[in-house]
Amino acid sequence: MREVFQQELREVQDRLVQIAELVEGAIRQATVAFGSSDVALAEQVIDGADAVDQLAGELDEQTIDILARQQPVASDLRLMVGSLRMSSSLERMADLAQHIAQLARYRYPESAIPQGLRKTFAKMGEIDIAMAEKLVALLRTQQPALIDEIRDLDDALDELHAKVFEKVLSDKISADATGVVDATLASRYHERFGDHAVHITKQMNFFLNGALQ
Amino acid sequence: MREVFQQELREVQDRLVQIAELVEGAIRQATVAFGSSDVALAEQVIDGADAVDQLAGELDEQTIDILARQQPVASDLRLMVGSLRMSSSLERMADLAQHIAQLARYRYPESAIPQGLRKTFAKMGEIDIAMAEKLVALLRTQQPALIDEIRDLDDALDELHAKVFEKVLSDKISADATGVVDATLASRYHERFGDHAVHITKQMNFFLNGALQ
Repeated sequence: MREVFQQELREVQDRLVQIAELVEGAIRQATVAFGSSDVALAEQVIDGADAVDQLAGELDEQTIDILARQQPVASDLRLMVGSLRMSSSLERMADLAQHIAQLARYRYPESAIPQGLRKTFAKMGEIDIAMAEKLVALLRTQQPALIDEIRDLDDALDELHAKVFEKVLSDKISADATGVVDATLASRYHERFGDHAVHITKQMNFFLNGALQ
Repeated sequence: MREVFQQELREVQDRLVQIAELVEGAIRQATVAFGSSDVALAEQVIDGADAVDQLAGELDEQTIDILARQQPVASDLRLMVGSLRMSSSLERMADLAQHIAQLARYRYPESAIPQGLRKTFAKMGEIDIAMAEKLVALLRTQQPALIDEIRDLDDALDELHAKVFEKVLSDKISADATGVVDATLASRYHERFGDHAVHITKQMNFFLNGALQ
């Protein structure tokens, strides 16, 4: 019985890693699609978000089932609670990658990125990808150092987010209303992606240490 | 023992209602602050979001404590799981009300709302307030009819969100880059507020019927 339970807990962790890997793939593809107006790749990301929703829904069912049958306590209970919250953040991250891909598709064959902001968005995309990679590693290895690394990346992301608005409002870039809308939304999506990664680090901290920070 | 448990479950429900009431107050004040550039009221909303975070954090602790001690099953377990998820959505709704208030404060003494969009944003604010009111009633009375009413309001909100972009991009309104950024963010915040209300209706449906829809 105890062994079955341990196996079930491992399955929950494996599924979280699996969903995080899909999110990592999605933000990687979304970044390329957004940067190069690759509409075929954008559509892959858009279609892929359903798979994440489905897996996250299945994981939630499994987690609730374990809570009901095994009535875990201490760190096992914290893993279950953390799983319910992390799956929700991973779903949102996949949604945000989808939104970034949608911006590329809406504006195709034009670029959704106004002149003068290409480098900034390339950098934001890189940081989102790095955060997703570290998140996969954190869920897999549970190394606490990764928590700080992810949070440092989020600080860098927030600075770039502020820089986008600074540029858009300074007339340093040439953008019509469409360009300003796209840049505003794209920057917000990238920034929120990072926020959810940080949210997951808090859940991992809660699981590992019993403290929500 | 059983009676203590029932009392604890009622406390969880009461706390959810209490937090939802704070969110309702926050979106109500944020709507007035945003519409009338009332910076003092905006600051009240901004300061108030911490209280929601704190209450939601305390509710989460209480919920996890009940899960560990009482090991609930069936609808009691679904209420605990739902509480963890609903508290997170309520927190985000308070954040979004805060963001709307911040837009008013940033642009003060100018209005954050471009000419030609005042009525649309007034309507979005009204709908957000109505959704928050119905959410309080749903959490308090558990009347399933409220679930559909909240979802219908969200459909109306999505239409207005699309209309904001249509107007911003059609040159029908006179807005500089700042106005376009503000309108884009404000519309997105109002729309996400509604999404979280719908998310909570799904959790209530899960609690009441065992199905996530």
